[in-house]
Amino acid sequence: MKCNVRLSIAIPDSALSDEDSKRDKSIKVSQFARACSVFRVSTIHIYHDRTTEYVKDRALIKTILRYLNTPQYLRKRLYPIQGLLEYAGILHPLIAPHHKPLVDLRKLKVGDIRVGIILKQQGKLCADAGLGRLINFKGRANDGDMVTVKFSSVYPNLEAVEALESDITYNYWGYEVKEAPNLSCLLSASASTEVLITSKSGKNFGSMEQELIKRMNYVDNLLIVFGAPKSGLFDILEREGKDIRSYRFVANMFPLQGTKTVRLEEAILGTLAIINHILT
Amino acid sequence: MKCNVRLSIAIPDSALSDEDSKRDKSIKVSQFARACSVFRVSTIHIYHDRTTEYVKDRALIKTILRYLNTPQYLRKRLYPIQGLLEYAGILHPLIAPHHKPLVDLRKLKVGDIRVGIILKQQGKLCADAGLGRLINFKGRANDGDMVTVKFSSVYPNLEAVEALESDITYNYWGYEVKEAPNLSCLLSASASTEVLITSKSGKNFGSMEQELIKRMNYVDNLLIVFGAPKSGLFDILEREGKDIRSYRFVANMFPLQGTKTVRLEEAILGTLAIINHILT
Repeated sequence: MKCNVRLSIAIPDSALSDEDSKRDKSIKVSQFARACSVFRVSTIHIYHDRTTEYVKDRALIKTILRYLNTPQYLRKRLYPIQGLLEYAGILHPLIAPHHKPLVDLRKLKVGDIRVGIILKQQGKLCADAGLGRLINFKGRANDGDMVTVKFSSVYPNLEAVEALESDITYNYWGYEVKEAPNLSCLLSASASTEVLITSKSGKNFGSMEQELIKRMNYVDNLLIVFGAPKSGLFDILEREGKDIRSYRFVANMFPLQGTKTVRLEEAILGTLAIINHILT
Repeated sequence: MKCNVRLSIAIPDSALSDEDSKRDKSIKVSQFARACSVFRVSTIHIYHDRTTEYVKDRALIKTILRYLNTPQYLRKRLYPIQGLLEYAGILHPLIAPHHKPLVDLRKLKVGDIRVGIILKQQGKLCADAGLGRLINFKGRANDGDMVTVKFSSVYPNLEAVEALESDITYNYWGYEVKEAPNLSCLLSASASTEVLITSKSGKNFGSMEQELIKRMNYVDNLLIVFGAPKSGLFDILEREGKDIRSYRFVANMFPLQGTKTVRLEEAILGTLAIINHILT
């Protein structure tokens, strides 16, 4: 069994506006990261929410999301001690397939893949793939690029090339974090992508489930859009001059909810659980 | 639209074994409470997990669950300051229909319902329903009972009786917390109840969804069982001399999961989201 749909989500840069402290904001971001990783989300888009004067936490959101997605062995190199990561130590790890442990160099096989960082040393490219020593890298890349490397030659002459998409045979290989100036530009740029807009005032998702499943036979990507703690997607789109009714799939994912509100971290996890259930 | 299925969940008393501090344990319990309230769970069973020597947090789990379910206006009376509630102040509230605000006594109508505490004052029963004064209560109850009262007479001669199940016309009216000495006794006591056992080694839930939906035409209750952070239900049932294969619905709710593990708080919310989706 395999799920061929690539999932992305979009969250606003005001996503943390209902948390007061940096500690609680950090924990909330880690909950987004966990939910996305459990359900194999490939891209997390952070869009600018124009409905609020709230001082946004965009830097905190993207830094923690990227940090948690980075294999442990690359973190020291990529993330010098900084205020945004003050609470990184208390966040639940993702433990996903691209977070590989240290292995004995002699046990590496041709075709093995690992996430690495490209470094230029004395004019030559090499990769830090968390193996205790640098690996010769054959290919085009820039100093500092994070790439998935594939071993093309074994110990003691370890050498790696950039892995192709087809080399990554794991169910999941982490997410990317992207930024969007607003939501409508993100939605209009999505021609090969179907969009699912989540909203308490949408129709029950059950009533459109079959239509969405059918639709996913024709497109490869599903982008699931979430609103902000203080404004729903109706308001956010309206502020951008768009009418939510012009979108095909506007769904209430949690009909008959027992609480007044569903928190964003709950909405993301719950929605992805339902989508994973119907698409796998 | 209405969901007629009564949902319960069962969690082990070792549910917090992967959290170190009382703060993080408390937050985790509040996540259980939130998930159960969003999806209208009527009973949370806490069963004893025999597979671990871990010092259990049963008192912490049940106290915080009950505290969060209690309307704010009754908390001072029911919960004197205590160590188990040290972090109650930082937990996300449920904000469910039975958490009613203070209302003007003159605006109460016959038939209005509120959660109250029965008190015996000078030989007479009355109820504290968070209205700034006690209400005469007609009926049988003991001092200290928490009951849902229904107003049978309006201001200034306010009087209330115990509400019947049929008086509670809200979608959701909170959960009960019950304790079970072990899991198998809980499962065998469930004749009018179907049981869904969640396990990563179960079959994909999708393969049994239709069968479960059909089954729910014949029983009113669905009990969803969760394992512990450190032992799955296969082990927990085996330690009780039961074979997990003797149960009809043993489901992997999260096929193709991208992370090594799904945390208990994630499993509860994700599972309830899926069940709510298929049953409403």
